[in-house]
Amino acid sequence: MPHIVVRGIPVEQLKEISTALVEELAAICGCGTDNFMIECLHTTAVFQGNEVESYPFIEVAWFERGQEVRDRFAQAIARHVLSLGIPEVETAFIAYRQDSYYLNGEGFFE
Amino acid sequence: MPHIVVRGIPVEQLKEISTALVEELAAICGCGTDNFMIECLHTTAVFQGNEVESYPFIEVAWFERGQEVRDRFAQAIARHVLSLGIPEVETAFIAYRQDSYYLNGEGFFE
Amino acid sequence: MPHIVVRGIPVEQLKEISTALVEELAAICGCGTDNFMIECLHTTAVFQGNEVESYPFIEVAWFERGQEVRDRFAQAIARHVLSLGIPEVETAFIAYRQDSYYLNGEGFFE
Repeated sequence: MPHIVVRGIPVEQLKEISTALVEELAAICGCGTDNFMIECLHTTAVFQGNEVESYPFIEVAWFERGQEVRDRFAQAIARHVLSLGIPEVETAFIAYRQDSYYLNGEGFFE
Repeated sequence: MPHIVVRGIPVEQLKEISTALVEELAAICGCGTDNFMIECLHTTAVFQGNEVESYPFIEVAWFERGQEVRDRFAQAIARHVLSLGIPEVETAFIAYRQDSYYLNGEGFFE
Repeated sequence: MPHIVVRGIPVEQLKEISTALVEELAAICGCGTDNFMIECLHTTAVFQGNEVESYPFIEVAWFERGQEVRDRFAQAIARHVLSLGIPEVETAFIAYRQDSYYLNGEGFFE
């Protein structure tokens, strides 16, 4: 937690930014870097009958931390991704309910 | 946006329907076809100790547009998928919060 | 339904637990085993500039069934996953809205 689930950015490019990005995100959230998971989904994008490159998109699945933290989180992601020469990236946040998250079968917040 | 995330339908078959499907979905939503992303997830399904074919499933991640648009959107998806000879498809909609969606680090609706 | 979407657990190991796990989950939910889909996502995890093994994580996408059923569901998943010698697993539940789920274009609950 948070889960950073990526489409449309090559793994090799993610490696370049992963260390600095996670350090910045950990500072924003006030938690350790080992809480972060960056996962690249293997996908095939289809448009108008052809396989195309996936649009750069990052879904962050986390516990809601409010507008200010969310804005800074999204800005950090965008700055690092755009630094790779990628022209555009969209980011969406999905908030898990705290009572619906478990570690080894026990409620995460109990 | 909207994101159309597919499991259990071969890429080759999706290509056949992608153009007409996206045109119809764009008309339903009143937006351009270039807003749509069709992404096939690479997955392995497991059932009773074996690898099996994934069940055809499409998750639509979008901004909520209300029951009528959603119904028409789901009907269009189903009609095109079933036209491929696929007997059954389930579709679920996930609504992103507008304040939790960003383009290049800026709020999408600001 | 429910969808059991897995990252970070090898397919071969999932096969070992799939039959007993789904039987137990079906008993908890009071439905047939053929309602369950176990899907392993193909992903690449990145941490500190390197590809690493994905952290074991299971997202359950379903209709909300309340705290007691959810707890038992999460406990069953954890017990079976940990029985493989995997030291830790996180599980998150995403609730689909009943009015936003379709079978062949028709509302699932109509």
